[in-house]
Amino acid sequence: MKVILLSGGSGQRLWPLSNDSRSKQFLKVLDGQDGSIESMAQRVWRQLGEVGLQEQAVIATSKKQVDILKNQLGRQVPIVVEPERRDTFPAIALTAAYLSSVKRINPDEVVAVLPIDSYVDNDFYESVKDLEDTLNRSGGNIALIGVKPDAPSSRFGYMIPKEKQRDHIQVSHFVEKPSETYAQALIKEEALWNCGVFAFHLGFILSIIEQMGFPLDYADLLAQYEKLPKISFDFEVVERTKDIVALPYEGVWKDLGVWSTLTEQMPEQFKGSDVLCPESKNTHIINELDIPVAVLGISNAVIVSGPDGILVSDKELSSDLKKFIFQFNKRPMYEERRWGWYKILDHSEYERDGEVITRRMAIRADSCLSYQKHEQRNETWTILSGEGSAILNDQLFEVKAGSVIEIPAGTKHALKASTDMELIEIQQGPVLSEEDVYRISMNWEEILPLRSSVTL
Amino acid sequence: MKVILLSGGSGQRLWPLSNDSRSKQFLKVLDGQDGSIESMAQRVWRQLGEVGLQEQAVIATSKKQVDILKNQLGRQVPIVVEPERRDTFPAIALTAAYLSSVKRINPDEVVAVLPIDSYVDNDFYESVKDLEDTLNRSGGNIALIGVKPDAPSSRFGYMIPKEKQRDHIQVSHFVEKPSETYAQALIKEEALWNCGVFAFHLGFILSIIEQMGFPLDYADLLAQYEKLPKISFDFEVVERTKDIVALPYEGVWKDLGVWSTLTEQMPEQFKGSDVLCPESKNTHIINELDIPVAVLGISNAVIVSGPDGILVSDKELSSDLKKFIFQFNKRPMYEERRWGWYKILDHSEYERDGEVITRRMAIRADSCLSYQKHEQRNETWTILSGEGSAILNDQLFEVKAGSVIEIPAGTKHALKASTDMELIEIQQGPVLSEEDVYRISMNWEEILPLRSSVTL
Repeated sequence: MKVILLSGGSGQRLWPLSNDSRSKQFLKVLDGQDGSIESMAQRVWRQLGEVGLQEQAVIATSKKQVDILKNQLGRQVPIVVEPERRDTFPAIALTAAYLSSVKRINPDEVVAVLPIDSYVDNDFYESVKDLEDTLNRSGGNIALIGVKPDAPSSRFGYMIPKEKQRDHIQVSHFVEKPSETYAQALIKEEALWNCGVFAFHLGFILSIIEQMGFPLDYADLLAQYEKLPKISFDFEVVERTKDIVALPYEGVWKDLGVWSTLTEQMPEQFKGSDVLCPESKNTHIINELDIPVAVLGISNAVIVSGPDGILVSDKELSSDLKKFIFQFNKRPMYEERRWGWYKILDHSEYERDGEVITRRMAIRADSCLSYQKHEQRNETWTILSGEGSAILNDQLFEVKAGSVIEIPAGTKHALKASTDMELIEIQQGPVLSEEDVYRISMNWEEILPLRSSVTL
Repeated sequence: MKVILLSGGSGQRLWPLSNDSRSKQFLKVLDGQDGSIESMAQRVWRQLGEVGLQEQAVIATSKKQVDILKNQLGRQVPIVVEPERRDTFPAIALTAAYLSSVKRINPDEVVAVLPIDSYVDNDFYESVKDLEDTLNRSGGNIALIGVKPDAPSSRFGYMIPKEKQRDHIQVSHFVEKPSETYAQALIKEEALWNCGVFAFHLGFILSIIEQMGFPLDYADLLAQYEKLPKISFDFEVVERTKDIVALPYEGVWKDLGVWSTLTEQMPEQFKGSDVLCPESKNTHIINELDIPVAVLGISNAVIVSGPDGILVSDKELSSDLKKFIFQFNKRPMYEERRWGWYKILDHSEYERDGEVITRRMAIRADSCLSYQKHEQRNETWTILSGEGSAILNDQLFEVKAGSVIEIPAGTKHALKASTDMELIEIQQGPVLSEEDVYRISMNWEEILPLRSSVTL
């Protein structure tokens, strides 16, 4: 069995902690092993290891998440990168082509597709392994996991059984997000929740790709990625396929995609320093800012502060968040990158003197900022901690805490940390644009040979 | 009639917007004239002008508030500075000595003492003017204004009438913060609220100072200020004085010292950019940070975010704030100064490389940072906007947006803005202490003559 882990989502429903580069699956709020805190992605990856599926897994994701995935799961984690975000069908098709044409996996091999943000016990992944047997014995085209509902939720999709076998069901049809009353009726018919897990033979999906007129070779399909229909795997494949079976699962399964359910899994009611919350019941606080948060007499609420904004929400209503926060169309104030992370401390505009962004950046030991230049802006780096080297117009400088490096517009510049390093970067220009970056090289070794070495 | 305006208070009850240097009376949240927004101090000062009392007034305050008072009311505003914060009796005594020995005011002159944070109509100040006549006709020692209660509040002090004259009452005694039930009984006896306004003949307070063995000369009393008892004027004088009269006042009077009452006077329900608040009733939001605030389904609450912290409080409970927030014993993140203001953007500590504070500073045109040096820290200034001059070890440099000025520990440095200027200052040292400032001169002209002039 092979496993495709889908890591998507912009995670607007977990604003302000999630943004385009830090989706909900990367938020470190869950109780990990031995007292550590882990993200949903880290939890799922660890669990796959524990049940022996990690070696079989590849992660399908977009460019924006590659850095944070490697930061959280390790540099060697196998990733298939979607050239643009389309939907789950194109992502699964591309990864299937990768397994077949690059990894030379046999079309008879069973492939299980899993979301990276399921909150489950290891039993769940044991059931995933059982899907191989279910698929083979039932003769079905697709085998799903159906979660036994514990409430008539209107937030999930339901699969309705046609016929019950000894250990699995034949699926008659699907109902998306029914009303609570309808859900109650469906549960009486022994309907199960669709938790987004699909298993099929690799050949099954390859034949669908072929029938649609797309190539099966990974490189060729990658080149045509933008032509793949922007549609979910559920709509494009599952709903059009006959002979779908499902394996019922009765253990823990939670969708932690909204604040009300996520906070239930937080090991502590309050996260962050300098938080107080008298006269409030069932209220959770996450404070990622460096300033104190005081909550007085506000019950059943979730209060979250981070570099991107502040949320104060009734827990029930927090699932409506997505409806509103699209209004805040701002660039992320915190992002994780290949080399570390940055946080925007200030963004000011002046009538005569243009724009200024001040940010604090952390560069991991042995990582580097690529060799680049800007046409429209000056930058100033002040090293706060650690040591490393800077290259300015092909010249090497040793830098350490206290060093100040001025980078006028047009100057080629790169920075490498030899120990963990932090710095303040001040960008100044008539207009600051994220597009104003001319990359000369990503690779420190390429930037050398150097003319000379100087200590700032 | 002379007026002493008392400007005190640490304003913990309006945290996080108020701090030691920005007390509640300086928060700009009130509807001013012609659409402007004004602070309580600005409102009271404007009203004193409108009723013709401004020319008679002097403000008693502590060192920490001098800069912000001048910023808000004008550089020429008359101020008597308490050398240390003691309480209202010492502040009034010192100002009385100032009026008598420096301003040569006659002991027969009536002096009215007013808090700088009353929220009233101009009618109130007309009543204040009437206190002169009331005092003279009644033969009383002290004349107060008694506000007609509109509810049995347990938050105020009550004055109980002994005898009712045509236009004023004789006060029998005072009751501090009674229970609501007791307050109801007191109101039946026609008790009035004590709103902190006292009028007396200057000679009355001078004779009390003299009887206590203190000098009446301003300079002499200033030198002995630390020996004056740390006690309120109410306890030291009012409660021990016979023949107290009060003038009833029926107009608008509000104590805006807590969030629940202050928000009632806000011209808009939301202040600050990027605020949204669906499904919430009677909730006020003040956002002084540069990030968005989303409030969903939280009613009857006040949400305030500022550089010093974030408050989310039920309105009723917001008056209890003081009980809790003493726990956040942090230095102010925003302060107004003689030369402008600063905001701390980041405060980091590193095991090997010490402490770092990054702050954004605004210097008004023609203002300057004093000539000083630090033993323990380097500083780096990056000018964001505007122009001016820097002096480093007696050498003059012209600076403008884009200039970067490095100031190693031990370097004498000053900065003068010729236009409004903003900059980022990065302080770095093993330990950063507010005491590590060696002032050479506050006066730009003194720092010259200069050796040379260079453009950075």
